[in-house]
Amino acid sequence: MSGRVITLLTDFGMKDPYVAEMKGVILNIYPQANIIDITHQVEKYNVIQGAFILASAAKYFPKGTIHVVVIDPGVGTKRKAIIIESKRYFFVGPDNGVLTMAAKMDGIRRIIEISAENYLGDRFSLTFHGRDIFAPVAAYLAKGVKIEELGEEIDRIVEVKLPEPQIKGERIFGIIIYVDSFGNIITNISKEHLQKIGVERRLKATMRGEKSLELKICRAYGEVEKGEFLAIIDSFNLLEISMNQGNAAEKLKVKSGEKIEITI
Amino acid sequence: MSGRVITLLTDFGMKDPYVAEMKGVILNIYPQANIIDITHQVEKYNVIQGAFILASAAKYFPKGTIHVVVIDPGVGTKRKAIIIESKRYFFVGPDNGVLTMAAKMDGIRRIIEISAENYLGDRFSLTFHGRDIFAPVAAYLAKGVKIEELGEEIDRIVEVKLPEPQIKGERIFGIIIYVDSFGNIITNISKEHLQKIGVERRLKATMRGEKSLELKICRAYGEVEKGEFLAIIDSFNLLEISMNQGNAAEKLKVKSGEKIEITI
Amino acid sequence: MSGRVITLLTDFGMKDPYVAEMKGVILNIYPQANIIDITHQVEKYNVIQGAFILASAAKYFPKGTIHVVVIDPGVGTKRKAIIIESKRYFFVGPDNGVLTMAAKMDGIRRIIEISAENYLGDRFSLTFHGRDIFAPVAAYLAKGVKIEELGEEIDRIVEVKLPEPQIKGERIFGIIIYVDSFGNIITNISKEHLQKIGVERRLKATMRGEKSLELKICRAYGEVEKGEFLAIIDSFNLLEISMNQGNAAEKLKVKSGEKIEITI
Repeated sequence: MSGRVITLLTDFGMKDPYVAEMKGVILNIYPQANIIDITHQVEKYNVIQGAFILASAAKYFPKGTIHVVVIDPGVGTKRKAIIIESKRYFFVGPDNGVLTMAAKMDGIRRIIEISAENYLGDRFSLTFHGRDIFAPVAAYLAKGVKIEELGEEIDRIVEVKLPEPQIKGERIFGIIIYVDSFGNIITNISKEHLQKIGVERRLKATMRGEKSLELKICRAYGEVEKGEFLAIIDSFNLLEISMNQGNAAEKLKVKSGEKIEITI
Repeated sequence: MSGRVITLLTDFGMKDPYVAEMKGVILNIYPQANIIDITHQVEKYNVIQGAFILASAAKYFPKGTIHVVVIDPGVGTKRKAIIIESKRYFFVGPDNGVLTMAAKMDGIRRIIEISAENYLGDRFSLTFHGRDIFAPVAAYLAKGVKIEELGEEIDRIVEVKLPEPQIKGERIFGIIIYVDSFGNIITNISKEHLQKIGVERRLKATMRGEKSLELKICRAYGEVEKGEFLAIIDSFNLLEISMNQGNAAEKLKVKSGEKIEITI
Repeated sequence: MSGRVITLLTDFGMKDPYVAEMKGVILNIYPQANIIDITHQVEKYNVIQGAFILASAAKYFPKGTIHVVVIDPGVGTKRKAIIIESKRYFFVGPDNGVLTMAAKMDGIRRIIEISAENYLGDRFSLTFHGRDIFAPVAAYLAKGVKIEELGEEIDRIVEVKLPEPQIKGERIFGIIIYVDSFGNIITNISKEHLQKIGVERRLKATMRGEKSLELKICRAYGEVEKGEFLAIIDSFNLLEISMNQGNAAEKLKVKSGEKIEITI
């Protein structure tokens, strides 16, 4: 496929026609589009989860990719519709922070508030901007329309940040930011945080006030026996708690948003 | 991508190899195909739900798109396999009504009963026409084979219709035709029905015999507070009952198929 | 689309960014790729289920398709990463048997142990070879890199086999190898096994020690009434127990891996 890549990331799920409607709209404007789903199973309205998944996945895509995100609890209110041009990508979606983390990682160049009546007309729903604004804007960008034709430059956007862990003496107080479908427990604690309290090859993790797990920091799941817990530094540079060939989160009954405490 | 768009809509779910088998068959015949999933999570054998989703999504696709639908409880029986040529599209699938609503909305031009032994051979399963008949027929259409080479014209097809609501005095007795993954409750009651009983900016909705909800008719979810119910006229021109940033259907414990009564 | 087809089959599910990361990596190396999902909902770590689904679906794809499979409980251990060149396809994935059944059905030509530092670099995670090894290898193959540049030829790979049913007198002792989302119960018992005990048009099936079902062997579900059980020989040449427009597995409360006994 030689057309531009457009990725879609939403909280729409897979059962309704909404994602397909966006794809139809895109293909009407730009038939060469190579549309790739990032996921449509972000928890409904969970902007920070969407931001994290976008930041994880976006960077693997080719230069010039247009990333469209529709996690949009404020659709139809005064929240802006924006395009962020970064070093390698365009990001299109609501100005609620969902785009910001990924765009900053790539290096923000310009931000545009969408106001493209000449392209979008003035008749669109106030409930589904994904189909009526973000999809067509992405398609026009892919087609080569200049970003400055699609709205006015602005200099401020909403940010969401992963909460920073607190370090007190030899303890790190962090949170679980994501649990994946394998049950890997992804925390907001980076390698650098661990180094600050002197963690080298082993650490202790406490969740839900239970007694602490002693964990080896591994590079591969197979370094411990099947069914045993381990710690890993992932490609996001964050601490993950996992189980070799098992579901750590289910076993420990923990969820995204909960606290985790790390000591040596 | 410059090839023809072929959409797929089935009740196959996402775990089995069946959708992929259809895609493989299509790409064997027509490698340029741009295959787009509408959804594969229609409730098993629910022809009317499939018809509604197709009618919602099909119209957003480019002229020349071939829509393939496999919700086919009667596979291998005497139900016909058909192609409907409409003003802008081709629809391919079983003659059980699943194609009719969308095709009529676009304007039916011709209906063909598929009997294309010269293209399909005479060896195909009686359990999976999606793979053995509908996918190859779609691919041949995309490739430019004339519709008349794929079967004989017929003049009657099965229809499914959304049940019409009953109006008695100042009451509309309707039903819930679809509940989406956000919990939006989509009814069979149109804007015109509402006007007949004099609804303007507010209405009362009664479901499950519970006490009635007083609802404002909004253009955007954000016109009410988070967690409050509202009414909306959707892009299908139908009345929806929703909750701002919440799941109305779950809260009200209602499902598709249930009754809803509207008064001023 | 005129680019090479690359299929993906994993146990990653649909909610995490992992599948999209693989797609991004592929499109970076080979932008023309026509990437098709087989499924991502194989049961976690279930190599034999993945092998069966691959063997079902792979053969429908065009010559030259590159099938990438990541069901990889041994990632980061000493299990090899391999490419199998078969008569019509390339298969890329871990050497744990998941590729073998499909590759053998097509006719294995060559097996390569991947060791492509010149293409992959020497920095990759030990937890996600799908993204860091298998996806780029598939993309380089699609781009035309010769298989021999990607590693050394080897002559042995891990095999997984469907367990063979036992025949004792007029009884076949088999197992359920897969239950699809329609509730069709797929066994390891072939048409030839049935012929050995003299089954012709009817058979008796016993599951879970319950009283046996008397079943007609049908070619179409509609040969029995709605809600009745039937037997069918599927396109894999295996015996399936189904229910017309109903869910046989749910009704019988059986799962993949359980025993089934067949008599005349």
